[in-house]
Amino acid sequence: MKRRDFLNTGVFAALGGALATTGCTPVVDAKKEPFKGKAKNIIFLVSDGMSVGTPTMADLLLQRKEGRSSQWMDLYRQNKVRHALMDTASADSLVTDSAAASSSWGGGVRVKNGSLNVGKNGENHKPILQKFKAAGKAVGCVTTVPITHATPAGFSVNMKHRNMQDKIADKYLELGFDVMMGGGLEYFNGTKRDDKKNILGDFKDKGFNVVQTKSQMTALQAGKPTLGVFTEGGLPYSVDQHSDEELQNKIPSLADMTSKAIALMQNNSNGFVLQVEGGRVDWAAHGNDAGALLYDQLAFDQAVEVAIKFAENRNDTLVIITTDHGNSNPGLIKSTKVDQKFDLLQSFKHSNEWVLHNIKKTDSPANVVERINYAHGYTISEEEAKTILKAYSKFDNGGLYNSYKLPFKQLAEIQENYISIFWSGMNHSADFVELAMYGVETEALPPLVKNTDLHNYMLQAAGVRV
Amino acid sequence: MKRRDFLNTGVFAALGGALATTGCTPVVDAKKEPFKGKAKNIIFLVSDGMSVGTPTMADLLLQRKEGRSSQWMDLYRQNKVRHALMDTASADSLVTDSAAASSSWGGGVRVKNGSLNVGKNGENHKPILQKFKAAGKAVGCVTTVPITHATPAGFSVNMKHRNMQDKIADKYLELGFDVMMGGGLEYFNGTKRDDKKNILGDFKDKGFNVVQTKSQMTALQAGKPTLGVFTEGGLPYSVDQHSDEELQNKIPSLADMTSKAIALMQNNSNGFVLQVEGGRVDWAAHGNDAGALLYDQLAFDQAVEVAIKFAENRNDTLVIITTDHGNSNPGLIKSTKVDQKFDLLQSFKHSNEWVLHNIKKTDSPANVVERINYAHGYTISEEEAKTILKAYSKFDNGGLYNSYKLPFKQLAEIQENYISIFWSGMNHSADFVELAMYGVETEALPPLVKNTDLHNYMLQAAGVRV
Repeated sequence: MKRRDFLNTGVFAALGGALATTGCTPVVDAKKEPFKGKAKNIIFLVSDGMSVGTPTMADLLLQRKEGRSSQWMDLYRQNKVRHALMDTASADSLVTDSAAASSSWGGGVRVKNGSLNVGKNGENHKPILQKFKAAGKAVGCVTTVPITHATPAGFSVNMKHRNMQDKIADKYLELGFDVMMGGGLEYFNGTKRDDKKNILGDFKDKGFNVVQTKSQMTALQAGKPTLGVFTEGGLPYSVDQHSDEELQNKIPSLADMTSKAIALMQNNSNGFVLQVEGGRVDWAAHGNDAGALLYDQLAFDQAVEVAIKFAENRNDTLVIITTDHGNSNPGLIKSTKVDQKFDLLQSFKHSNEWVLHNIKKTDSPANVVERINYAHGYTISEEEAKTILKAYSKFDNGGLYNSYKLPFKQLAEIQENYISIFWSGMNHSADFVELAMYGVETEALPPLVKNTDLHNYMLQAAGVRV
Repeated sequence: MKRRDFLNTGVFAALGGALATTGCTPVVDAKKEPFKGKAKNIIFLVSDGMSVGTPTMADLLLQRKEGRSSQWMDLYRQNKVRHALMDTASADSLVTDSAAASSSWGGGVRVKNGSLNVGKNGENHKPILQKFKAAGKAVGCVTTVPITHATPAGFSVNMKHRNMQDKIADKYLELGFDVMMGGGLEYFNGTKRDDKKNILGDFKDKGFNVVQTKSQMTALQAGKPTLGVFTEGGLPYSVDQHSDEELQNKIPSLADMTSKAIALMQNNSNGFVLQVEGGRVDWAAHGNDAGALLYDQLAFDQAVEVAIKFAENRNDTLVIITTDHGNSNPGLIKSTKVDQKFDLLQSFKHSNEWVLHNIKKTDSPANVVERINYAHGYTISEEEAKTILKAYSKFDNGGLYNSYKLPFKQLAEIQENYISIFWSGMNHSADFVELAMYGVETEALPPLVKNTDLHNYMLQAAGVRV
């Protein structure tokens, strides 16, 4: 990257301002160059669709349940990070989607919602993991949603539209990245591919280790690139997995995948760059699904812990913790006995998704009351149960994250009365979001960045010029 | 304050952590003492009830309307502040009210919601403006809500309950602080006092300048303490005042009051401490009133600008910018043509409160459609107008910030479709909130503080030991 490009970034403009306030002139000065290129490794963690109420409530839940801080907020309390707000807009809207958001980091340019590093005139912006791979680093992504989904894809590929997930899977085969793990089996085994091909064999033929269970993943040794696809669609919500031994045995957690990805890549002599996505935090927010949201945020937090543990005794790793955009701005909202209501979350057994999947149109209101009581510990009224049942017959909204056409909204509106968590709609927000950096090369972070600033930030931090 | 007290604060614990990570032992070390006592003046600005979506949307609105950043976010972009998240809980709830929140800063101890610096056993925690006054500083508060309201009162008095606003007015008379300005005339002229006394004369007798209009305020000279009470209840919403020349002439803006308060106190040889509250941001959030919210946030931002202009060429002033808690977590939420919907805010003439006050039960749906179109620029359907009218006949919720029993919720739910701003309920949230520091003595701010930490922070920053 040319020095001139760097001068044009918001990051540098901000630093110029900072220098000015301390009496230095805001011009490039070798002694003031903020980056030293010390970040041999970068771990970039994304809790997808995370409004600030999400890590707040996750931290409060953990404090009240287990008497300890979340890892993320503990880093703040211990003054171990620099942090910032991030402006998340895309090229065509104040409210980004995950494809444009990840592209802003991945390609350094804002593109239209839906696009993966393809600009308005069809131009390709080279994705950052391709840049780092070319610079000799091991690279990879792990996620709880399909590995072909927008956030890992935005670091990895150019694609006109995020929905072309079979093409994204093909592209991964071509790229040969070191570790790609998550859900989305249907884009590899043919069930949702236009060409109906099963390309898992192609990955093996190309020298990949292909794993489909937690135990296969655990047994992996370094040496070959890895593709892990553990489920169709997304991985289970943590709150559901905690209540299901079979799911626990078969499917790795985000922290498990993070730990293994680091183990597989850490001995590469030029270091590694890993994206870690808590992707179902966003899906839970779209569903106004409080238990799913907070336990997936805590599962993300365990992945943060893995990253920090790796980085803390080294002097060569930058850990970035953030989100791509807010979603539905959930909050614990004042009401009578609000703390006691919030404490019900501590013993949630299942997500709203699980509850709604298990209700049948033909159930009695008493069945519905009982099922929700089992899953969440509160007792709704028969009237409320009737409202939910009624919604099954007329519900027909659908949409990307509501493919089973279930009455998420109706359940959430009833649930508000019992757990006092409220939601602003069911979609992404324009809120500036939280971003933290830990480890080396954190000093150049100003208090407010544009999402695109992170592209050059990562390259500069790693000393990679492309 | 004893050194030991300081050791017990979260601020110091956090600093200890920071020192530890750089190889220093986390013990008190004169050379490492983070405070130098340089903050002769402190300006503490509170946008009451401000979720992070509020300054975000205010900044985006100003960028799109006038092509410039808000002052607050510009400080971030220019890397001129340190900032943090703040945990806002009270003694009895994860979700604070404004009385407990202001008491946490004012008295340094968490008290129960509703209380002003009175602990659970009836003990008084000395309010910070009394401490600073005793140390020779000029002190004061300006606000857009009654000057006897929770936020200024929490810096000023001990009172069992915030609702005792006539007693708070009496206490102000006794305290003789240098500048107290805002609304709440009814607690001074007798209309809402238990004793029906008009105590404005008592203030004059005690040597106060008493002002009730903007021109009287403008004409004030330094020398005597000042009481300014400009309206009953709160001052008008900025969006309404902008459309009413009479209100503009009669009533000062928050920036006007801030500027005058600084002018009146800045020549005090021991400096001054001023609290500035954008109090109606919270009221607007309680009413899910988007236009009121964003234009009052921008009016708050102009007060921030006044504070920064004062501080920027000095080396003796600390400016703190924050909120006491979130409220209703508003967000610009993704929908079709979301940017165009958001842009309607640019030409809003009036608040939802104004709209709802001007609708009568006997109005026709067409009247309602027309009135909203005049105030907000979008055209609701006749069906939606009927929903609003219907709510007038049955609406009976009431409450602290909804004293006219108007259908704020119904209007906001309809408005969501036109401006795409959504809300999480109508009350305070437990979200960790945004806090920024500018000027001297900002270095000791860790990335996450408890609200109570700010009490000792301010005393230490000013070098005041009490």
